[in-house]
Amino acid sequence: MSLVITGTVAFDAIETPFGKTDKIVGGAATYAGLAASYFYDKVKIVSVVGDDFGQDNIAILRNHGIDTEGLQVKQGEKSFFWAGKYHTDMNSRDTLATELNVLADFDPQIPESYQDCEFLLLGNLTPQIQQTTIKRLRERPKLVVLDTMNFWMDVALPDLLETLKMVDVLTINDAEARQLSGEYSLVKAARKILQMGPRYLIIKKGEHGALLFDQEQIFSAPALPLAEVFDPTGAGDTFAGGFIGYLSKVGTINFNNMKNAIIYGSALASFCVEKFGTEGLIDLSNDKIAERVKEFVKLSSFIIE
Amino acid sequence: MSLVITGTVAFDAIETPFGKTDKIVGGAATYAGLAASYFYDKVKIVSVVGDDFGQDNIAILRNHGIDTEGLQVKQGEKSFFWAGKYHTDMNSRDTLATELNVLADFDPQIPESYQDCEFLLLGNLTPQIQQTTIKRLRERPKLVVLDTMNFWMDVALPDLLETLKMVDVLTINDAEARQLSGEYSLVKAARKILQMGPRYLIIKKGEHGALLFDQEQIFSAPALPLAEVFDPTGAGDTFAGGFIGYLSKVGTINFNNMKNAIIYGSALASFCVEKFGTEGLIDLSNDKIAERVKEFVKLSSFIIE
Repeated sequence: MSLVITGTVAFDAIETPFGKTDKIVGGAATYAGLAASYFYDKVKIVSVVGDDFGQDNIAILRNHGIDTEGLQVKQGEKSFFWAGKYHTDMNSRDTLATELNVLADFDPQIPESYQDCEFLLLGNLTPQIQQTTIKRLRERPKLVVLDTMNFWMDVALPDLLETLKMVDVLTINDAEARQLSGEYSLVKAARKILQMGPRYLIIKKGEHGALLFDQEQIFSAPALPLAEVFDPTGAGDTFAGGFIGYLSKVGTINFNNMKNAIIYGSALASFCVEKFGTEGLIDLSNDKIAERVKEFVKLSSFIIE
Repeated sequence: MSLVITGTVAFDAIETPFGKTDKIVGGAATYAGLAASYFYDKVKIVSVVGDDFGQDNIAILRNHGIDTEGLQVKQGEKSFFWAGKYHTDMNSRDTLATELNVLADFDPQIPESYQDCEFLLLGNLTPQIQQTTIKRLRERPKLVVLDTMNFWMDVALPDLLETLKMVDVLTINDAEARQLSGEYSLVKAARKILQMGPRYLIIKKGEHGALLFDQEQIFSAPALPLAEVFDPTGAGDTFAGGFIGYLSKVGTINFNNMKNAIIYGSALASFCVEKFGTEGLIDLSNDKIAERVKEFVKLSSFIIE
């Protein structure tokens, strides 16, 4: 049994009000994989890089026990590259460069050893690739989580809608939930989206936390108020990775476990944004994570008699 | 012992994506008073209206057991009038008209029977009037809560800063906390604001809930996700009124009671926004409120083992 994660493994160049990086390792599958690795020891990645990526960078994943057999290395090609600049509010950003490179004709390959996949995270990629990944697994995983973004709603909506029918959980942000549903109220948006396929919807609200919906219940998770947010890059991917990593560990899918998975995912995301790139996810420990989760409990608990 | 509330008692004309009203009864003290009346039976209002306001409108307050001895009625003058139009997101609005009328030279009068004031809510008004109200109470109340807005930060900052030194709790929204402190991070903003006078800071985040800060702790309260928000007018005043009304009932000031007061204030605010103007606050019952509070508990509780 394993957790398979698809998504980009890439280079990012990031500028925030607090500083600027050259090309550093990033990508949805990188963030998600690192986050998941703190909960579950059978994390396997499906992605593609160019030969500029280097073994030292792949080692970042391997050092966290992540299986990279499904990470294709294309000789003579370059890795996906994204450059972006965050505004002062850290909630909006400008994309300065997007070089698809190897991603342009990425065809996800599922190694035979990945066919034991029980949990599948489809990180942000074209809906077509996300769908192909599901189809190439001989057995339908117990839980399929899909993360996507407004870009795919703009350019590949029919593909996205088709893919949504095949998944259990969708994670998007509040603006995306509004775009996808055409409803301003998140409650109404959730009702509509839950009829598109997913049984669960997670709406990520950045510094305002997250909402989990199923057909009957809503859970509101807080975000940890932080004195410094250095770099929000990868926070959503980290959240998704922590979320499914925690569920892979506990094994049972129900609303209560999903709630806790959101808290653990949020805790990991809070570490992520405290440093540039993946730095905040490299040297965590179970103790540090447990301590952070206690802060979430303290932050949001109250007793009404 | 009593709860004294200052603030406007006024007419509003409101336009939202869901509809439009003619002049209806509004004002910070109206919303706050109505909300507080569900928790505490000695609510007393200090405000001013013109002779256009009418006994039938004053009766709305009296029917909720609110003492209006401190509500001056200026013969031959007109009541404060505000007209506004909300954008689709309901978080931003345009002011279409502000007619100060009686408010232009409002001098708050504290009837002798109000001198038993134990809890004081200074609703949104000029900091100068808020300060005068405190000074005209012979005994310093046990708890002074001040609500204000960006407008006073723009035009009367020195007055506001002086008044802040005299209060225990400040309630403002997130943009205002950023403006007042010059800090983008709400954690840093809170640290600075808690050095300006208040022992507690409540940051209202509308549909994202609220944050409570003291020197050592933070509490994050959820907002109830609503299918329909008809009219956000008065939600902040209602929140403040419910908050201090609940504290007036329990009597003891500590972080845990403040947390619950925020939940009760949020519950009242959730009723407020479901209808136009004060309509949602007229016919509540303790049962309805308890039911709503249960929804907040259900919405935000999780158990990490």
